[in-house]
Amino acid sequence: MFMFEKPLGMRDTLPSLYERKKQVREKMTGVIGKWGYQFLETPTLEFYETVGVQSAILDQQLFKLLDQQGHTLVLRPDMTAPIARVAASRLYNEQYPVRLAYEANVFRAQQREGGRPAEFEQVGIELIGDATTSADAEVIGLLISTLKDTGLKNFKIAIGHIGFANALFGEVLGNEDRAEVLRRYLYEKNYVGYREHVKSLPLSSIDRQRLLKLLQLRGGVEKLADAKELVTTQAGLEALGELTSLWGILDDFGLSDYVKLDLNLVSHMSYYTGVLFEVYADNIGFLLGNGGRYDRLFAQFEKGAPATGFGIHLDRLMEALDDKAELKMIHCVLFSQERRSEAMEFASNLRLKDNNVVMQDISGVQNIDAFTKKFADVNYFIGSRKEERDE
Amino acid sequence: MFMFEKPLGMRDTLPSLYERKKQVREKMTGVIGKWGYQFLETPTLEFYETVGVQSAILDQQLFKLLDQQGHTLVLRPDMTAPIARVAASRLYNEQYPVRLAYEANVFRAQQREGGRPAEFEQVGIELIGDATTSADAEVIGLLISTLKDTGLKNFKIAIGHIGFANALFGEVLGNEDRAEVLRRYLYEKNYVGYREHVKSLPLSSIDRQRLLKLLQLRGGVEKLADAKELVTTQAGLEALGELTSLWGILDDFGLSDYVKLDLNLVSHMSYYTGVLFEVYADNIGFLLGNGGRYDRLFAQFEKGAPATGFGIHLDRLMEALDDKAELKMIHCVLFSQERRSEAMEFASNLRLKDNNVVMQDISGVQNIDAFTKKFADVNYFIGSRKEERDE
Repeated sequence: MFMFEKPLGMRDTLPSLYERKKQVREKMTGVIGKWGYQFLETPTLEFYETVGVQSAILDQQLFKLLDQQGHTLVLRPDMTAPIARVAASRLYNEQYPVRLAYEANVFRAQQREGGRPAEFEQVGIELIGDATTSADAEVIGLLISTLKDTGLKNFKIAIGHIGFANALFGEVLGNEDRAEVLRRYLYEKNYVGYREHVKSLPLSSIDRQRLLKLLQLRGGVEKLADAKELVTTQAGLEALGELTSLWGILDDFGLSDYVKLDLNLVSHMSYYTGVLFEVYADNIGFLLGNGGRYDRLFAQFEKGAPATGFGIHLDRLMEALDDKAELKMIHCVLFSQERRSEAMEFASNLRLKDNNVVMQDISGVQNIDAFTKKFADVNYFIGSRKEERDE
Repeated sequence: MFMFEKPLGMRDTLPSLYERKKQVREKMTGVIGKWGYQFLETPTLEFYETVGVQSAILDQQLFKLLDQQGHTLVLRPDMTAPIARVAASRLYNEQYPVRLAYEANVFRAQQREGGRPAEFEQVGIELIGDATTSADAEVIGLLISTLKDTGLKNFKIAIGHIGFANALFGEVLGNEDRAEVLRRYLYEKNYVGYREHVKSLPLSSIDRQRLLKLLQLRGGVEKLADAKELVTTQAGLEALGELTSLWGILDDFGLSDYVKLDLNLVSHMSYYTGVLFEVYADNIGFLLGNGGRYDRLFAQFEKGAPATGFGIHLDRLMEALDDKAELKMIHCVLFSQERRSEAMEFASNLRLKDNNVVMQDISGVQNIDAFTKKFADVNYFIGSRKEERDE
């Protein structure tokens, strides 16, 4: 049965899911277009040196290959680095800010059977060249607007700021290696491990408490006041200031019901530089999408620029929506050779009226009874005698 | 400048081409849906043993990589073999005939700079499980219908039958190796080479003439009569009989202006088994699409089935259409912080009226004059004094 198999993590999308995905994708791209974002497409294969290294994805998750010139290529693991490449080269003369969007499959190699998909579709945006909190708010506002338009209910955006944890760790630990260990616990959402590790550190009881209190900084906007007591450096206070402004804007936009604060958010290890966020729906246990500010990435592409964006994991969104796909019913026109023209005319008329119509030569069908079961209805144009039929 | 580069044959699709491609793709998929075909998606990566070997594409054009389990994978070089895999496994219980369609990128490694694209989009169909000439006619009819709907003018479908050349070569040469040499000349459309090679063969002058006359069998349907004089075996006459029936049906459908006969067509070396065809537009020098009957492929997937289909090369079609993309104009709403809510309301109303609207915080713009040039119009909500504005 080897002939039927697919590589680890690879999936087929059969017609009913295909159509439903298309509907949801079109809703999303419609909203994104309305907000003035322009879609583009980049190649599936990129140079490892250009895009693979810059990506937020772990190296072991990259699909790599050698081209015939001996360069290492990767299947793009996300769209952010490719868009940064385009923005820095092809769009070099565009006046920032620039608003770009994509709907694209991305690739992450998987280690075991039954695990995550190795290829999945992301719909997302990048807002490049705008360092204001307005830009952060726009991205979160558009994310919420996009998800609402798909019909998704009961979802929340958890919003944090990488600058806060970094400031706190800097103040308390004064050592980047130690901070890295704690960030990894947060990244893995291993809060028990974080707590145990903090307890094992040679710290004053006050400093230990500061690190432990970080874990409580998840909830409503009122947690910002608690957070303010934990840091003293300007960087830490600036992070909280940005979040306060952001909340104000989201409030103005009437979006505060969709957001909550989470100062434990770390997301990718060393990618985001400011506000960052994750999307969850109540009915599924995994991330629907995420995003944030990544002001350093563009410096890699020779033209520094602040940037922020989001990506939505379309296949997971489909699971969260969990509604049945409604495949458009197909009509069948079954004909024998002599009545082909008559059948064709009938089918053409039905198609003009926006129906999907299969025209089938009866001599091409082995089992008429089973074959015709697939269709909404069947019109017969067979034999030399004209049959009465309803139209 | 390495950071800006892409692998050989890889391209970016920037917003204006992206939108135009989307419009053309939607026209095509609309028609294909109306004819009762259902779209599906298969993975970008497949096992070499499953799909790479079965494909009509030369091995050296395959992008290959090793997965972490040591299997050889390929980036799909076409969609026919993947769809055969799906039809033979996931759709095993479907009652044939089955009508499937796809819009997908496929991959062919290129050897040199400035050459063909290594990744390009195909829109196509497969009609599986129907051996009748009606099925061949349906595929060609749908191909013409699809192309017409994109607005393409002045295109022609060249139609041939692999069985005819095979029969003629069998009768004259009686030797498969010699036949292979001639088929390769035809495949490469190297008619001068074919002629020289035929002249060098140790044949009677009558047989030599038969092989040379093959080259004249391109033109109108009347060439079928000439062809009939060149073969005597049943296989050869059957091939011509199928073409005669096919022409009758295409005539009935009013499509004969779009087709011409070409009995020199060979296309892929050993893939097609019956009727086959190629699409050309007058204004570009390369193939827009092709297709035909490939009844043997499915035998590789354990469930033998006749099948026919076509694939259209979307990027080439874009070149043949050669019309300007009309990007939807974007409006800009420029605001300062105090007037954000007012600006948001204004932008939301414009978006509800189906406009694309960028909302931009003025403090995020470095060069206002240059930035605002990009937009259809700009509405300003800045400063504390309300300005008059038209809506």
